Amino acid sequence: MTTKNNGPTRFPNLPVKEPTGAALIEQERAKATFDVKTLSKFIYGEEYLAKLDKIVPILENDSVFDKSRRYFQSRDEKIRDAWRKDRRFLELRKKHNWDDVDEKIVHGLYDQPSPYRLHYIMFVPTLEGQCNEEQRKLFLEPSKRDEIIGCYAQTELGHGSNIRGLETTATYIPETNEFEIHSPHLSSAKWWIGALGRTANYAIIMARLIIHDKDYGPHTFCAQIRSLEDHMPLPGLTIGDIGPKMGYNTVDNGFMMFDHFRIPHVSMLARYAQVKPGSGEYIKPVNSKLSYGGMVHVRASIVSETGRALARSSTVAVRYAAVRRQFYDSTSPRKWNGETIETSVIDYTMVQYRILPIIANAYALMFTGREMLRLYHLNIEAMKQGNFDILADLHATSSGLKSLTSFMAVDGIEECRRSCGGHGYSMFSGLGHFYNDYLPSMTVEGDNNMIYQQTSRYLLKTYRNVIAGTAQPSEHNLTLNYLAQYLQNPKAKCPATTPTDFLNPEVILSAFGFRAAYGIAKVAEQIDHQGRPWNDALVDLHRISRAHCQYFIVRTFFTALQRDNKENTPKLGTEERKILQAVASLFALHVMEKDLSDFVLSSYFSAEQLEMVKQQVQDLLKVIRPDAVPLVDAFAIPDYMLHSALGRYDGNVYPALTAMAEQEPLNSTQVVDAFEESIKPMRQFALKNRNNDSAKL
Amino acid sequence: MTTKNNGPTRFPNLPVKEPTGAALIEQERAKATFDVKTLSKFIYGEEYLAKLDKIVPILENDSVFDKSRRYFQSRDEKIRDAWRKDRRFLELRKKHNWDDVDEKIVHGLYDQPSPYRLHYIMFVPTLEGQCNEEQRKLFLEPSKRDEIIGCYAQTELGHGSNIRGLETTATYIPETNEFEIHSPHLSSAKWWIGALGRTANYAIIMARLIIHDKDYGPHTFCAQIRSLEDHMPLPGLTIGDIGPKMGYNTVDNGFMMFDHFRIPHVSMLARYAQVKPGSGEYIKPVNSKLSYGGMVHVRASIVSETGRALARSSTVAVRYAAVRRQFYDSTSPRKWNGETIETSVIDYTMVQYRILPIIANAYALMFTGREMLRLYHLNIEAMKQGNFDILADLHATSSGLKSLTSFMAVDGIEECRRSCGGHGYSMFSGLGHFYNDYLPSMTVEGDNNMIYQQTSRYLLKTYRNVIAGTAQPSEHNLTLNYLAQYLQNPKAKCPATTPTDFLNPEVILSAFGFRAAYGIAKVAEQIDHQGRPWNDALVDLHRISRAHCQYFIVRTFFTALQRDNKENTPKLGTEERKILQAVASLFALHVMEKDLSDFVLSSYFSAEQLEMVKQQVQDLLKVIRPDAVPLVDAFAIPDYMLHSALGRYDGNVYPALTAMAEQEPLNSTQVVDAFEESIKPMRQFALKNRNNDSAKL
Repeated sequence: MTTKNNGPTRFPNLPVKEPTGAALIEQERAKATFDVKTLSKFIYGEEYLAKLDKIVPILENDSVFDKSRRYFQSRDEKIRDAWRKDRRFLELRKKHNWDDVDEKIVHGLYDQPSPYRLHYIMFVPTLEGQCNEEQRKLFLEPSKRDEIIGCYAQTELGHGSNIRGLETTATYIPETNEFEIHSPHLSSAKWWIGALGRTANYAIIMARLIIHDKDYGPHTFCAQIRSLEDHMPLPGLTIGDIGPKMGYNTVDNGFMMFDHFRIPHVSMLARYAQVKPGSGEYIKPVNSKLSYGGMVHVRASIVSETGRALARSSTVAVRYAAVRRQFYDSTSPRKWNGETIETSVIDYTMVQYRILPIIANAYALMFTGREMLRLYHLNIEAMKQGNFDILADLHATSSGLKSLTSFMAVDGIEECRRSCGGHGYSMFSGLGHFYNDYLPSMTVEGDNNMIYQQTSRYLLKTYRNVIAGTAQPSEHNLTLNYLAQYLQNPKAKCPATTPTDFLNPEVILSAFGFRAAYGIAKVAEQIDHQGRPWNDALVDLHRISRAHCQYFIVRTFFTALQRDNKENTPKLGTEERKILQAVASLFALHVMEKDLSDFVLSSYFSAEQLEMVKQQVQDLLKVIRPDAVPLVDAFAIPDYMLHSALGRYDGNVYPALTAMAEQEPLNSTQVVDAFEESIKPMRQFALKNRNNDSAKL
Repeated sequence: MTTKNNGPTRFPNLPVKEPTGAALIEQERAKATFDVKTLSKFIYGEEYLAKLDKIVPILENDSVFDKSRRYFQSRDEKIRDAWRKDRRFLELRKKHNWDDVDEKIVHGLYDQPSPYRLHYIMFVPTLEGQCNEEQRKLFLEPSKRDEIIGCYAQTELGHGSNIRGLETTATYIPETNEFEIHSPHLSSAKWWIGALGRTANYAIIMARLIIHDKDYGPHTFCAQIRSLEDHMPLPGLTIGDIGPKMGYNTVDNGFMMFDHFRIPHVSMLARYAQVKPGSGEYIKPVNSKLSYGGMVHVRASIVSETGRALARSSTVAVRYAAVRRQFYDSTSPRKWNGETIETSVIDYTMVQYRILPIIANAYALMFTGREMLRLYHLNIEAMKQGNFDILADLHATSSGLKSLTSFMAVDGIEECRRSCGGHGYSMFSGLGHFYNDYLPSMTVEGDNNMIYQQTSRYLLKTYRNVIAGTAQPSEHNLTLNYLAQYLQNPKAKCPATTPTDFLNPEVILSAFGFRAAYGIAKVAEQIDHQGRPWNDALVDLHRISRAHCQYFIVRTFFTALQRDNKENTPKLGTEERKILQAVASLFALHVMEKDLSDFVLSSYFSAEQLEMVKQQVQDLLKVIRPDAVPLVDAFAIPDYMLHSALGRYDGNVYPALTAMAEQEPLNSTQVVDAFEESIKPMRQFALKNRNNDSAKL
């Protein structure tokens, strides 16, 4: 065990204490009341799981996709690896003939943002949507063939959410039939643009269109920004990386400033708005409601992704909580081979209260994302025939859902990390890194603290329509339904008389609907009849968006459990349905408990009923506890993806932690260089001072 | 503006748009209703501020204390700089003859954990407390002269909070009068030990004392662990760094495993427990209640520190919210030189609702920490005379306070960061880095999710004493007082009839006291008379600890505003008192609103009163808004400390962001090496594929 030279530090081969993590987690799996595989198929479908099984070993065995250095890398090493991975991905895609679903799986498994990915997420879809035929050939086709790499340059140093406030100008020059892009102020610099810093050679540029001194507001341009030969920025451009961030450091978020940068007329994407060559006549875009559908699709993906983020975090938290033991529980001691052992922390009710609701959130959000997609597809035909009624409700709801669910995800990831105690702070937990990379979800695709207002605005409008009698009843318009029900009796009371009444979906849904409607009616009254300004009401407007979206999620979760018998999805057995029903109830009642004051303001609940809700949450935790590990196993997240010492499938937490620590670069020598530079001189300084002091005495 | 070679990227000299950040923030300062300097003096005292003024320029002008590379460093560079700083600190301390207060200021300003600091925080105090006279000479004196560097090795890979579960053994060997330290399992490895990995040459080691096969549980030892000549670990030890963490990467948290490692008899710290040489007779420690006081002192510092953490975060958030403008507010448009400009985000009520309560939290916690110290000093004499009654309440409260306030700090830092929008995600905000380094406060000095139980246990005990009539009334025992008041009328109702009634401290305090007492009475009833097990009640036990501590903080805040006239502290003027009273009310009512359901369960509040609380919170935000910037200015946090582009005193946010981005290493060349390695080959691969595909057609 002793090291005599200055070589690397290696761990001695110490025995693992009984019961091992593997034994403990196996015991958890033996307790399952349902079949894990059946539930996984219900969540993902068989095809997806088969693809996953095929791809994991390819990545595990590819040196470029190796993750073993991930937690030790400097930013420079990280981003270099990200570019390598992007290059290798093209080769593997061709070799294995990966389709779109495979691609998503690959990037999900590798689990690190990379520069090229933004090309596909932002650059290509914008071109798809806004190019005319000529531009499709010029920009879109080479993009899809990966011959150019693009970025999406909208945000500026001084402007984010308010697109109308963008400062970059694109002035039409009739003489040369060009546009001149210019940054008038420091705050006009394009900023935060993913893959702009050092990667992209093309950019979508949002700039204010100016024709004959008239400002037509922001329009979309596409232009080359770097040489395709030597990658130098084109003359007139200053381009760089904006520096380190909390996460996302594998992407070169960049800045760009324009000094009277000229681009040809064809650069203005012309599917909607156009400028006539020469005359500079402006042709207005035709409004298209079809974009409604696209946005619902994007947001459905975001919501599903928040579900997967929580699935992943709770997998780590729950497995580790089953393995980690702390203190002897004197009232119900844990036994192992006849001896009392320390209790697994998952048996403490405080731990259950923290992490089991996050499992419930994960299921709720995965089903919500799926339901949004189902509705989207169900209505796509109706939309083509000009019928937007059904989707309008969903579209309006999707803003608030994006805001609510990405907050739920970010907070849930962090709560899972914290529930891991001290080791949760180590990068080897796999959750710190994930949290830092996930944080931007609160800001991108609409800042969470802004976009809920779209939902609130719709809710108020719907309320006014119901009051005015101008609303058309519709089976799919949830808002109309709960508002109408509320208005029939605004003094209604919750009918529950025992805690188990709160397991009844009807009781739960009525409470959520009443609470949302009460809040909407109140704010509408204040704004419409008491002159309360919008800005003054923002906190309450946020509350109604939140209340509405929680109603939507709760309803969706319960509905998902009824739907599978009717439709062409894998079936649930009795046991799987039973545990999911408990999970759905926990989701709803936990939300209710957290926001209890909202339910109280309307006097819908009595103090006794509040106690029943709290009691039922505790009872549900007891029901779900034995299935905690199987419920996260059903998320089917491979160890390769988790890259977590704490969340491993096999439960061997401590050997994994020590094996990872052995790779720490500081351990490559027994004595660091800093010893000679700093540590030794400190002692010498101290000894010298002591001698001087003694000499003075 | 164009760059023709592959040199570094430099920003063009673009004009800053009017109104500049500097102009906006000056306008904020002109609105102050009170004198910032007077308030600063009230918070810190004049002496402290004078020391601060003296030290800041010393550090700013010292190359080792320079922060300009901080956000760009790899872990290796970070920790190397930390050691350099530790060395330089010793030199500067001697040169400037710094005392303990100066030292704290220096480390606070530099604001980065460093290996040597733990020597002073953990190693030296343990020796102070537990050495006998011989050991003081042997260990303590050279430690205080910096001739040896120590760490505190308690936590193990498999054991954190449960000290009784530690596995490392220290077996007494009578033959040689030594102890043999050994790690029986992998989970026994010492883990997380700050400064152990590569710095310390001595360690405090917690290990189970075994004499003649009898286990006496964990005891404290001190031993040399590395050579003082070449820094190699001593034979029998495996020592290394545990790897990267979310933060604290400037410290080498380490591991250590013992292979029958022998240390002399004198190594067992013997002020309390002792082992007789030769016979191995064990001499029990005498219980000392004096340690009560020490713990209160440590926890008072922690609480004060949480206040400073929030002061710092809110300084950044508030200043940036004053400078950052977004959207035109149509109902009350912002004017500048007659023109309508975008509104500063601090004028949106949602932003006020998010960040102004954090200013209030900062003030509340700074005053709470100070009050704890005041009580500690007030009672130190009483304790020496054997009177522990007064401090008992404070000691029991301090566990829950540590838990509650460090959660408040961590969550508040993150909320401030998020309130900065996109730029809050940049390391240049100064808050991401701070958050990551601050996270361990939830775990160290007692895991937040465990230690509240100490407070809960005391609350239940006190309740039982009150019920049994065995409690002695005491002016300083807050718990007794509110419990007694509750028991006089458990059906009491809140007397408030208008929203302004909630500005009355009596009304507020009665509500907080009633709510705490109601919760305690209920849990006591369940545990004592309904057989509810402790583990089953953990969630409710957490609630009563929280309720009690919130009562304590609210009471302390209001008391602090009355006290200064009586005692020898700098005085508040009428204006300063007025704004602080609004801040105190906001603190209390915002807490009340967040935990409203707790106040409702007891039926103490009616639904109408709940609305009044919500209304009054909104009204207080309006009162405090004009003083927001002056209130954070009063925290007197120098720019050197903040190291934040967003939180600068002068408001010049955008020039600071661009200046920092210019330093990003990726910008040192216009084209990165990865272009040749990855980006160019991707294009070549794509072009080759296209040609192959065309050839096939």
